Amino acid sequence: MANLQSSDLDSVLKTKMPALGVDLGGTKISAAVVCDQQLATEPRLEPTPHGADKIVEAVLCLLSEFRKEHLIAGVGIATAGIVNVDTGEVVGSTGNLPGWEGTPIRTIIERRTMLPVHVENDANASAYGEFRAGGLRDKRCLVVITLGTGIGVGIVVDGRLYRGAHWAAGECGHIRISLDNKRLCTCGLFDCWEAYGAGRGLVATAEELVCGLTEDQSELAGKGKSLTTQAVTAAAARGDIMARRAMAIWHEHLCAGMVTLAHTLDPDCFVLTGGMEQFVDYALLSELMTDRTLPRIAEKLEIRRSVLGKDGGMIGAAQLVLDQITAGV
Amino acid sequence: MANLQSSDLDSVLKTKMPALGVDLGGTKISAAVVCDQQLATEPRLEPTPHGADKIVEAVLCLLSEFRKEHLIAGVGIATAGIVNVDTGEVVGSTGNLPGWEGTPIRTIIERRTMLPVHVENDANASAYGEFRAGGLRDKRCLVVITLGTGIGVGIVVDGRLYRGAHWAAGECGHIRISLDNKRLCTCGLFDCWEAYGAGRGLVATAEELVCGLTEDQSELAGKGKSLTTQAVTAAAARGDIMARRAMAIWHEHLCAGMVTLAHTLDPDCFVLTGGMEQFVDYALLSELMTDRTLPRIAEKLEIRRSVLGKDGGMIGAAQLVLDQITAGV
Repeated sequence: MANLQSSDLDSVLKTKMPALGVDLGGTKISAAVVCDQQLATEPRLEPTPHGADKIVEAVLCLLSEFRKEHLIAGVGIATAGIVNVDTGEVVGSTGNLPGWEGTPIRTIIERRTMLPVHVENDANASAYGEFRAGGLRDKRCLVVITLGTGIGVGIVVDGRLYRGAHWAAGECGHIRISLDNKRLCTCGLFDCWEAYGAGRGLVATAEELVCGLTEDQSELAGKGKSLTTQAVTAAAARGDIMARRAMAIWHEHLCAGMVTLAHTLDPDCFVLTGGMEQFVDYALLSELMTDRTLPRIAEKLEIRRSVLGKDGGMIGAAQLVLDQITAGV
Repeated sequence: MANLQSSDLDSVLKTKMPALGVDLGGTKISAAVVCDQQLATEPRLEPTPHGADKIVEAVLCLLSEFRKEHLIAGVGIATAGIVNVDTGEVVGSTGNLPGWEGTPIRTIIERRTMLPVHVENDANASAYGEFRAGGLRDKRCLVVITLGTGIGVGIVVDGRLYRGAHWAAGECGHIRISLDNKRLCTCGLFDCWEAYGAGRGLVATAEELVCGLTEDQSELAGKGKSLTTQAVTAAAARGDIMARRAMAIWHEHLCAGMVTLAHTLDPDCFVLTGGMEQFVDYALLSELMTDRTLPRIAEKLEIRRSVLGKDGGMIGAAQLVLDQITAGV
């Protein structure tokens, strides 16, 4: 009987313990209390300050605010960049967060708060969030693709994030999908997947298509470098032929990288998330994937929409620290 | 004292137990006794007969021959095709072995011999062999690339083969490295890595290069469809300019797929094996990889030559069954 009560208590602890989830991006920091794989509060947003010290202070400040009204058992931080999860340090720089590389985030925040802290690459955190919240716990291999300005990938194998030999697994934005040396990626390499399949890839495709056209021929013509993702997707929605053509080619480019991941990892399921996900035509993407993947792999492959959307990073990071805490209960 | 002796015995059993390793290819079956990650006998070779029943009989016949002179504790079979390792059945067809798909190889051979049998995809078996024999047991992630007529990949993570959700992980010969829809692969898809980076890819590149040239300009000209890998590599060795150009482009194509695997899996080490491995210029390949991979991944990435060569499949398959037996000791 005593055992039964103790196991009930464990179960309550495991599902009801709250943690702070923080998503640290180049322009803003989002934070919310997370409990049982979902947000327990509205998220708070702060603009990302310049410099590592100020970023850490901003996170601590958000934490203090939430602690006034909530019990917080730990802090999970999803950040851009390559993260050494053992030390909780960003080891690979990200252009969006100058000075962030080399900051021992976990150590600093643990010392200042006396709470357990987990720091994770943002695409990995989102992947873990989708895995935990999306009813996907029976999956052997889940590949979560974050489509935004760039492309990030998180890989969950047998319930655990696969992080590679040097914490850099899933840097799939930089898989090479063409031999042409045609598009230069922001990383300095040519023909990276994200130079085609991410938001900026869509814009580059549209620029190529409307080059030399007049505004009578496409509303995207003559915009030069001021062309944006929003302009292309909005024009496509209004029926602009060239914008629709750009969207179709974007799906081909998206598919090219996914075909590669399908043949390498043979996942049960792809989950798409990120700001560009809303523009994905799932019927078209599935058709392209079936067409370009070995039948054995294609016929059992699911492609799903994210269940957490922009909250995936916060929820995943918080759930990672919660799962570590409860594994020790 | 009794414990010590028992553990000594365990250790002897674990390193000295022999198994039969069988490598089952489209043209020949090779088999040898394997002990402690190396061949304990000369391999025997048989031409691969037509039809699943005859293939199974040929394997049983080879086993009987070896059993006359050797104690055999188990049988490891490396075969072309996608293998369900739980059932020991080939579940994905291979054009080279008609009728092989759906054969419950493991069940048949276990029933006929009363020995434990492990059946594994050949690229996976080679990868496991390299992992066990190559001093690579401390590696977090090892990617073994078999370069032959096609390309096969085996992935070892934390000492275990990663086989995917439907046993098809590492079908990397079919990752897509170009957007051009230019080269049709034998699988029916366009622009698969092996249509460029395998032996037949090298030949296709050479054909493109010498198209329209005369025999005065290149010894490869005018050969049409009779051009072979051997002809290209031999001409390159003799200094033929176009053959050397084909070899240089082949390295670029090889690199394209490896860049993708590096950014996806972030391995410690690539190992190259297979019939085409002998033609790889490792200095050139390393230079290309450094040039086309994110520095964080490239700077710690090793590229090694196989230590087992053509024996990798036999040794890996046998070692897999031995490791299963000794795990149960």
